[in-house]
Amino acid sequence: MKKIINEPGDFVNEMLEGILKAHPDKLTSVDDDIRCIAYAGNKQKDKVSIITGGGSGHLPVFLGYVGENMLDGVAVGDVFASPSAFQILSITKYVSTGQGVLYLYGNYGGDIMNFDMAAEFAESEGIRIEQVIVNDDVASAEKGMESKRRGVAGLFYAYKIAAAKAYQGASLLEVKETAQKAVSNIRTMGIALSPCIVPEAGKPTFNINENEMEIGMGIHGEPGIRRGELRKADEITKEIMSCLLDDMVLNNGDEVSVMINGLGSTPLEELYIVFRKVHSILTDAGIKIYRPYIGEFATSLEMAGMSVTLCKLDEEIKELLDYPADTPFFVQK
Amino acid sequence: MKKIINEPGDFVNEMLEGILKAHPDKLTSVDDDIRCIAYAGNKQKDKVSIITGGGSGHLPVFLGYVGENMLDGVAVGDVFASPSAFQILSITKYVSTGQGVLYLYGNYGGDIMNFDMAAEFAESEGIRIEQVIVNDDVASAEKGMESKRRGVAGLFYAYKIAAAKAYQGASLLEVKETAQKAVSNIRTMGIALSPCIVPEAGKPTFNINENEMEIGMGIHGEPGIRRGELRKADEITKEIMSCLLDDMVLNNGDEVSVMINGLGSTPLEELYIVFRKVHSILTDAGIKIYRPYIGEFATSLEMAGMSVTLCKLDEEIKELLDYPADTPFFVQK
Repeated sequence: MKKIINEPGDFVNEMLEGILKAHPDKLTSVDDDIRCIAYAGNKQKDKVSIITGGGSGHLPVFLGYVGENMLDGVAVGDVFASPSAFQILSITKYVSTGQGVLYLYGNYGGDIMNFDMAAEFAESEGIRIEQVIVNDDVASAEKGMESKRRGVAGLFYAYKIAAAKAYQGASLLEVKETAQKAVSNIRTMGIALSPCIVPEAGKPTFNINENEMEIGMGIHGEPGIRRGELRKADEITKEIMSCLLDDMVLNNGDEVSVMINGLGSTPLEELYIVFRKVHSILTDAGIKIYRPYIGEFATSLEMAGMSVTLCKLDEEIKELLDYPADTPFFVQK
Repeated sequence: MKKIINEPGDFVNEMLEGILKAHPDKLTSVDDDIRCIAYAGNKQKDKVSIITGGGSGHLPVFLGYVGENMLDGVAVGDVFASPSAFQILSITKYVSTGQGVLYLYGNYGGDIMNFDMAAEFAESEGIRIEQVIVNDDVASAEKGMESKRRGVAGLFYAYKIAAAKAYQGASLLEVKETAQKAVSNIRTMGIALSPCIVPEAGKPTFNINENEMEIGMGIHGEPGIRRGELRKADEITKEIMSCLLDDMVLNNGDEVSVMINGLGSTPLEELYIVFRKVHSILTDAGIKIYRPYIGEFATSLEMAGMSVTLCKLDEEIKELLDYPADTPFFVQK
């Protein structure tokens, strides 16, 4: 295990200590629990709050999207493990302004269980809660079975869009509705070339040969659609785009935002080679690209690989996507 | 070689095509040469221009720092190879406003030769040129031999500070002087845990055992100070900080900006674990940290490892560092 860490058991807390020391004006811990983190800037008193949560090892997901015009708080779990219901409750109470709190997170069993439990506790204390679950990974379940799909890099779009809506002064139900629309407009598919190593486990999450790739692998190493020989970037991109375009209705003249997301150790150069092909496929289909995002937005520690996300735009989503944002991990003017 | 690429020989041009298609409002190629790239926004007619250049494989270095309030243009070489003098000349002529052009780049033989040649050509065409060479890597030559040191992640600070000075309306000699002050205030040292693979070579740039790290390795795999057993993050950080603090004069009450730079495949989580220790070492020495930068600012394809850069601040450098910036790879409000 070749990592720049101290004791594996201290990985998450030391990483969080580093983050809080680096960005004290932007992020703060809540209730003396370093796993409960909120935006440290001025609270907008009359705004719906949005929180998220999930396992560590995916930076900037999840806590990297807490900040100005973005999420209000996050509960942070161990590597690839859910935070507890009590941590979610703690952050819920901290961010609550009386306008209600939206729980917006990825479709994983442990997270759902804990957010559900936190919602029950919070409601019993008089805080209105709504939940929207992100399920953008088309490789994780067939069309028609969307509710079984995992949440991956598309989380970024759900956060960005819902948060801008909340900052515009929308009600809890309006923010929920916009978040749901965003989720239904997002599709992601990726490939992995190498596993990652969870510090406390000390061994790779899966094995893969030197000449192989796995199409559709999840961000915790969940199996994908198939494993095959590593092919050229253009062929990989064509296969991914064909799956995405089969799964969502896009017509000539439609507009999408595109994200090419690196999983951890894939160079930015390679992501742009993939974007080049995505651009040519969409242009040939008469689909316009607006505001592409290319970089690391949702990682799996040092996993090699990338994912492509399409977010279908309408006027509302475009305006919300354009809204400025400022977090220690994501700045948009 | 596990990479998401097409033909290895097309790596650089396809990457650049992707970048230009992704950011047409921000970046443009010049003279029909995709290796000559300039800021596509409105030119400030009365401003000193700054250009840089160097080999590919280091994104966001070099072209990632071309943009609003940042560099005006860049000449892009093959992977780890200098661009030609003619490409540098081409971009020089494009960005020239009559106020002079500063060449600001890293201390590598091939780059110096080509920038020198381009400067001669440009001057013979009546364009005033000044040059500042960045040499922040303390591991690459002993104290007293600074002129032999390589330029690494500290390039970012030189770019950021000099570019802000130029946008403030300073003269060519003033911008040069500020760039030189920035360079003299920057020190970097890093470690590598794994090599990278140059696409056209197809094999690792060096070999290193599973339990080893190389202290002070260069961003092209140049040998460092010593190779040793991989140690804990805090021990590595202490060794790096001790070299940096021995090399530069910092006193109780001084202020520095800190960069923790990932070389390609080191997770952001680990960079924050390193920052945590840097913060504690500097705080114990009475040195204040201002505006830390943690992420990938100068990479070596998929190399694993990181570097720490300290930039000593004074009022002028602080103000210039605070100046907003907007490139496709770096946004600061």
